[in-house]
Order: sequence, then C-alpha cells, then structure tokens
Amino acid sequence: MIIELERLEIQSRADMEMIDVTAEVDRVVAASGVSAGLVLVMTCHTSSGLIVTEGVECLGRDVLAHLERLAPKQPPKDGCGYWHNRYLDFDGRVGFNAGDHLKSILGGFECAFPIENGAVVRGGRQRVFFVEYDGPLARTVLVQVLGQ
Amino acid sequence: MIIELERLEIQSRADMEMIDVTAEVDRVVAASGVSAGLVLVMTCHTSSGLIVTEGVECLGRDVLAHLERLAPKQPPKDGCGYWHNRYLDFDGRVGFNAGDHLKSILGGFECAFPIENGAVVRGGRQRVFFVEYDGPLARTVLVQVLGQ
Amino acid sequence: MIIELERLEIQSRADMEMIDVTAEVDRVVAASGVSAGLVLVMTCHTSSGLIVTEGVECLGRDVLAHLERLAPKQPPKDGCGYWHNRYLDFDGRVGFNAGDHLKSILGGFECAFPIENGAVVRGGRQRVFFVEYDGPLARTVLVQVLGQ
Repeated sequence: MIIELERLEIQSRADMEMIDVTAEVDRVVAASGVSAGLVLVMTCHTSSGLIVTEGVECLGRDVLAHLERLAPKQPPKDGCGYWHNRYLDFDGRVGFNAGDHLKSILGGFECAFPIENGAVVRGGRQRVFFVEYDGPLARTVLVQVLGQ
Repeated sequence: MIIELERLEIQSRADMEMIDVTAEVDRVVAASGVSAGLVLVMTCHTSSGLIVTEGVECLGRDVLAHLERLAPKQPPKDGCGYWHNRYLDFDGRVGFNAGDHLKSILGGFECAFPIENGAVVRGGRQRVFFVEYDGPLARTVLVQVLGQ
Repeated sequence: MIIELERLEIQSRADMEMIDVTAEVDRVVAASGVSAGLVLVMTCHTSSGLIVTEGVECLGRDVLAHLERLAPKQPPKDGCGYWHNRYLDFDGRVGFNAGDHLKSILGGFECAFPIENGAVVRGGRQRVFFVEYDGPLARTVLVQVLGQ
C-alpha cells in the first residue's frame, strides 16, 4: 500500500475567495504512483472550506454570495446575534468570524475521490475548490493519496 | 488490498427527486469480497447530491422542499440574484441552475461508510440517496470499495 | 493493512448539544498502531451530526443556534410545513423531528482525516464534534482506522 500526504500552501488574497486546486490534486495523485485507491482533500482551517462544484467564475460568485446569505458575517437581526468573536491579529482589532465558521460547516471542509488507472475519477464538471471565508490568510490544504 | 470501482447509471424522472441507492451500495460491497474496509459513494454531477437520511417518503419531500427554501431555483429577491446561468441542452433554452449547484454544496456530493464482516456498517435508519436537483437527466454515481 | 473499527457510545443530555470527541478519535488511532492511513468518524443517527469546527464554547452555541435558524424544529411559516413526524418513544407522544434531520444533512454526518506518524493530522483549531439535534438519546459514533 502506498500512502502519500502532501501539504499545499495557499495564500488567499481576499476576504472571500474560491481557489481552484484541482490541478494540484491531480499532480499529487500522479506523483504518488498510485494506480487504484482514493484521494482525500482537506482544509486545515475552520473558517475556510473545501467545495466541489462547476468551475465557472459566475457560479463561484454565486457560491460565495449565497453562503454569505445563509451564514452572514453580520449577526442575524433576530436578537440572538453571535456569541463568538475573536481578536483579528492581522488588523489589530476584535472582529467577528462566527459567520465564516458557519459557512465552513455548511459547505464542508474535506472531500474524497476514487483513483482509477492512476487518475482521479470525477465528473466532467467537478472541480475542487479551496474556499476562503475569512481572508486574506496563509492556509494549508492536505492532499492524501492512499492505494496501490 | 482489494479495490473495486463500479458506476451506477441512474435515470432521474423529475426535476427534483430522491433515489434510494442503498441496495446497490450493499450489492457492490458484497460482490467485491471485501471483509473489512470502506465504501465511498459519490455523484459525478454538480447539480445533484448524495445524502444520507431516514428512508421515509414524507421526509424525502421535506428534504427537497427545504433545500429549495435554502437554495431556490429562482434567485433570491435581494437585488443580487444569481450570476450563473447556462444553456439547457435538453430543452433548447437558456435556464438557471445556480440554485441546484447550491443545493448540491449544502447537501453534499459524497459519503463514506465502514465495511465490517463483509457488510456496510450504518445506523438502522440510515439510507443512502442519490438526489437529483436538476432533472430529469441520465446520471452516474460511483461506488468504490477499498479493503481486504 | 490494519483496519480497526470502534463504536463510541455517547449519551446526550440535552435536546441539542455539541460533544467534543476529538480525544476519543485520537485514542482509537493511537491504539490501532496505524502509522499512516486515514480515520473515518461517523454518527449512526439521522437526527445527529458530525461537525469539525473550533472548540470554543461560544462558537458551539452559535453553531446550534444557526442550524436551528436554517432548519427549525417548528415548520417554516410558508404554508408548506413539514410532512415528516414520528412517534417519540422516549416521551410517548407524536412529535416532529424533520428539522433535526435537515440539520444533520446541512452539517453532515461523517468526516475523514489523514493519519501521519501515528497521529491524526488536523489543523490547530480543528476539533471533532458529535452533534445532537434530537436528544437526549443514547447514540453511537463509529471511528474506523485504516492504514499500515
């Protein structure tokens, strides 16, 4: 059994951003020499996500806008608000990122694909995105290949 | 190590529909001869999903209705709308399926279960559903078994 | 290949509750003797979830409150309601838990992490939570380790 784990270092450039890592995932799988098995892709950060969807720019804008609708950075105006806030060390002030943790939960933080004949098996439209909800930040994404 | 990958060809019959594939997953696992390991189930399409929930018809209606509430086909009336639309080749017109991609992200597109003693280990109420958000269409679901 | 499956028996004490199982997951991985591989964590119940987020109490309150906003126990007042209800055997009355199944779908029911050098690889803030949406109940969470 071959097991390889690679860390992708990603620098997000915006507060919210979708970064296509499909080519990196494919590269790690090819380099592993695994013919059949699976690949696990995971973000290490609880205010970021890992989403598989179609790779068109307009849809990426919709994904970010809609997650912001469903889990807004500003607390919902229902009188309950968010309990969680934190000191934002990159700008020296107390801020809120509860909504960004919630986006991460809704969209997910990891996914797995089969490997067959040395290649990742995915649908023709499926692209793998690291999704920044609370950037810009330096982030780590894991790509693990397991197989033979 | 045994690694088997099978493609289930599924024809959805409605715009939105939950199709129970649990028996197919069980069948692929049994046929693989794997005694211990895991099974990965994944839809190949970004406007469809893979959801695990209780297998009762009334709940299936709630799942589809609620995902439509959270990620509607018609753009939210907040002035932002959806940026994504596409040419629907099955009916020859430009349409919108941004809401269906969003449903897929919220509900997820893959899941994994352990295999023990040659059988999928799942809770008594857990059933595996391919979920169509943008049908009717011919769809492919992957079932991969990995173990010994 | 080493494959170990352990069942965690969890007693939730409230209707909705986040229970940190990270130490249990780490313990199962350490006991397995697996040096490299992956660990799958899964709840067996369709009105509970498995969520990875930061381990701070205020955020846990936000997660539960926000999932209740998005998938409320009381049917949305849009005239459609929920079709699903069930007999609650622990209190002898018919009740509704459609909203709790919906929470489980939104937040997810399983996740996987890589194992490297005998330890689970996760981000510094990532904790693994069993999430009760319909308690108090006796629940089972699976931890499967697969590797070498």
